[in-house]
Amino acid sequence: MGWTREEDTYGKLAHRTDSRIVFLVFDGLGDLGGPDGVTPLEAARAPNLDRLAAEGACGLFDPVAPGITPGSGPGHLGLFGYDPLEWLVGRGVLAALGIDFPLEPGDVAARFNYCTLDSSGAIVDRRAGRIPTSENERLTRLLQEKVDPGEPGIRVFFRTVAEHRGLLVLRGEGLGHRVADTDPQVTGSPPLPARGEDEASERTAAIVNRIEAQVRTLLAGEARANGILFRGFDTKPEIPSLEERYRLRPVCIAQYPMYRGLARLVGMDMPPPPPELDALPEAASARWEGHDYFFLHVKYTDKAGEDGDFDRKVEVIEQVDRWLPDVLDLRPEVVVVTADHSTPVPHRAHSWHPVPTLLWAPGRVRRDSVDRFGETACAAGGLGRLHLRYLLPLALANAGKLQKYGA
Amino acid sequence: MGWTREEDTYGKLAHRTDSRIVFLVFDGLGDLGGPDGVTPLEAARAPNLDRLAAEGACGLFDPVAPGITPGSGPGHLGLFGYDPLEWLVGRGVLAALGIDFPLEPGDVAARFNYCTLDSSGAIVDRRAGRIPTSENERLTRLLQEKVDPGEPGIRVFFRTVAEHRGLLVLRGEGLGHRVADTDPQVTGSPPLPARGEDEASERTAAIVNRIEAQVRTLLAGEARANGILFRGFDTKPEIPSLEERYRLRPVCIAQYPMYRGLARLVGMDMPPPPPELDALPEAASARWEGHDYFFLHVKYTDKAGEDGDFDRKVEVIEQVDRWLPDVLDLRPEVVVVTADHSTPVPHRAHSWHPVPTLLWAPGRVRRDSVDRFGETACAAGGLGRLHLRYLLPLALANAGKLQKYGA
Repeated sequence: MGWTREEDTYGKLAHRTDSRIVFLVFDGLGDLGGPDGVTPLEAARAPNLDRLAAEGACGLFDPVAPGITPGSGPGHLGLFGYDPLEWLVGRGVLAALGIDFPLEPGDVAARFNYCTLDSSGAIVDRRAGRIPTSENERLTRLLQEKVDPGEPGIRVFFRTVAEHRGLLVLRGEGLGHRVADTDPQVTGSPPLPARGEDEASERTAAIVNRIEAQVRTLLAGEARANGILFRGFDTKPEIPSLEERYRLRPVCIAQYPMYRGLARLVGMDMPPPPPELDALPEAASARWEGHDYFFLHVKYTDKAGEDGDFDRKVEVIEQVDRWLPDVLDLRPEVVVVTADHSTPVPHRAHSWHPVPTLLWAPGRVRRDSVDRFGETACAAGGLGRLHLRYLLPLALANAGKLQKYGA
Repeated sequence: MGWTREEDTYGKLAHRTDSRIVFLVFDGLGDLGGPDGVTPLEAARAPNLDRLAAEGACGLFDPVAPGITPGSGPGHLGLFGYDPLEWLVGRGVLAALGIDFPLEPGDVAARFNYCTLDSSGAIVDRRAGRIPTSENERLTRLLQEKVDPGEPGIRVFFRTVAEHRGLLVLRGEGLGHRVADTDPQVTGSPPLPARGEDEASERTAAIVNRIEAQVRTLLAGEARANGILFRGFDTKPEIPSLEERYRLRPVCIAQYPMYRGLARLVGMDMPPPPPELDALPEAASARWEGHDYFFLHVKYTDKAGEDGDFDRKVEVIEQVDRWLPDVLDLRPEVVVVTADHSTPVPHRAHSWHPVPTLLWAPGRVRRDSVDRFGETACAAGGLGRLHLRYLLPLALANAGKLQKYGA
């Protein structure tokens, strides 16, 4: 992991000013039209978003690269101005962030699935019949109580995520994280033994294998969840903060642990989560002094997309649009409205479609012909189509936070 | 400094043909709209530019990268197809180019400011009250006459740039150029001693420090300009020429030393400067044989932007539009109209906004829906939004000068 010359240049040109940038992120905002070609964003009555689009410039941004469907980690790294191909957040670490598990430097985290094994030890169901979360909690408490990593100085944490999914964390000195998945991704074979890619990771793998054997014994009497599969071993990445990179004093206004965790990875200040979506403007207002970058995260557009609920996605957009004037009343110099990825209603999942984006900065942004905020309109916008990692530098430029390059 | 694989590939595919490319560069052309959203380019009556836009393809180009405000050096390197993040022209070298000082390989050049020091030697004014150029000339003549670099084989040149600004050049064997600025960029402290980053540059730094002490003695009686601050030490970069890279036989038709100097860095032929803006077509015509790339540089759009003079910027565009048919009468295969950067009238300075660009090449370019040349129209053009370094390769392709890649 490292800087490209371009990223390095952005960092060198950045300087601190008093101007403020609001980054309003609708998770999974981008969508596909229905039979009439209209997306939820286009169907929404959102006069405030439309006004910002009309007064600003619009475009389409690829969170990672054209055609790539991003997970939440890469999507947010792109939002925060990091190339998601250079800066990686592993699945295990993301799972920890998602349940607010306080990872420490050096911890090795992995996602796990409960699974069903037959009497020969072969996998019958990789998701243990999608056991309910309550059953997961019962088993996970048992494992937390009984499993012994078998090495002095090493601690093990089992945590429930949801349904058949959980989090394993190993803590102790000298644990490597380059451990291959034990989940073979197919049924009919037994789980793979854990293997490390280097000496420290071999040590981790040996512990994981001991743990796996103990889990099998402890769960032998279970009808469905009688085995465990690990994947995505990783350790918390050391990502330079937004302050180091861009001299920003960023603050995270987000309700959900995953996004708070991603924001924490890049060094954002972290006031308590707003109790409801309508509380975001007040939370931003409360931190207005002392900060110049406000990450406002709206989860429910993504959730509506995952649920295939067109009307709900429209409602969420309209709900945010109603309180947008409260954010503008704070008088930010720059407002960006964008997304970490698309979650089209017909897909009920993340997709590769570039995200509709508007950049508003009176007197600084070059207006284009777009006068409504929507996917199709953005395709003809003045920002064009860019990698998402360019969006934060563009916001910095429009906030007067990037100095001239070269003489 | 070196080639990326992409640049290397362009170079390998380029071959010489008889077709000709005109690169008409309006310095600082890009702008922001006024309250009505109309830019100078959009306000101008420019039927010939509009016709080329209608018959060709348009787009927006980022001189360096999105959000980056380029100096003239990086902007022109982008125009000439070089990645400005890889190929750097230092401030001292640019100052030399700007006054047509004939830098030789190995010369070390630096910008200097006359400054005002108080009796303790601390800087009171980094620009010596912006002394008039005539005062600068008097002092600079004195320094040129009296200062002795104090080492055999080393020569020193002092030159006036304008107001408080000047150029220092050291010439001799084995001078390093990695010397830190002596300008601390703040008042209240004394100038910094020059320091070199390597042995050869330490030698340069020692000479600079001797010079600085002599200057202080020579100027001790001056009311305002009694000190000197150096910055941007550099040596002429070794940039492969457009002939080496692309098999071009390029010629520079530009009035101002800075742009002629930048063109000389990439190996352009250099006929005498046209006496006036309206003489550019004739100057191109006079060199039509023997060349296939014509860099036509229009300075006054940038100047009007720096002066905040909307109407003047419109006038310059209309003036060039009137003689554009004379250029077309020469029958170039490709015409590109673009800029090295934006200089918006409301900013009175360079900016990060991408530059409006048209590419005209009958029978070769894919026409788009744009029928007027302007910033907003270009945003919806067929060239999209690209880094400026791609523009010259696009022109080469449209001139039939790039061969197929791979089988």
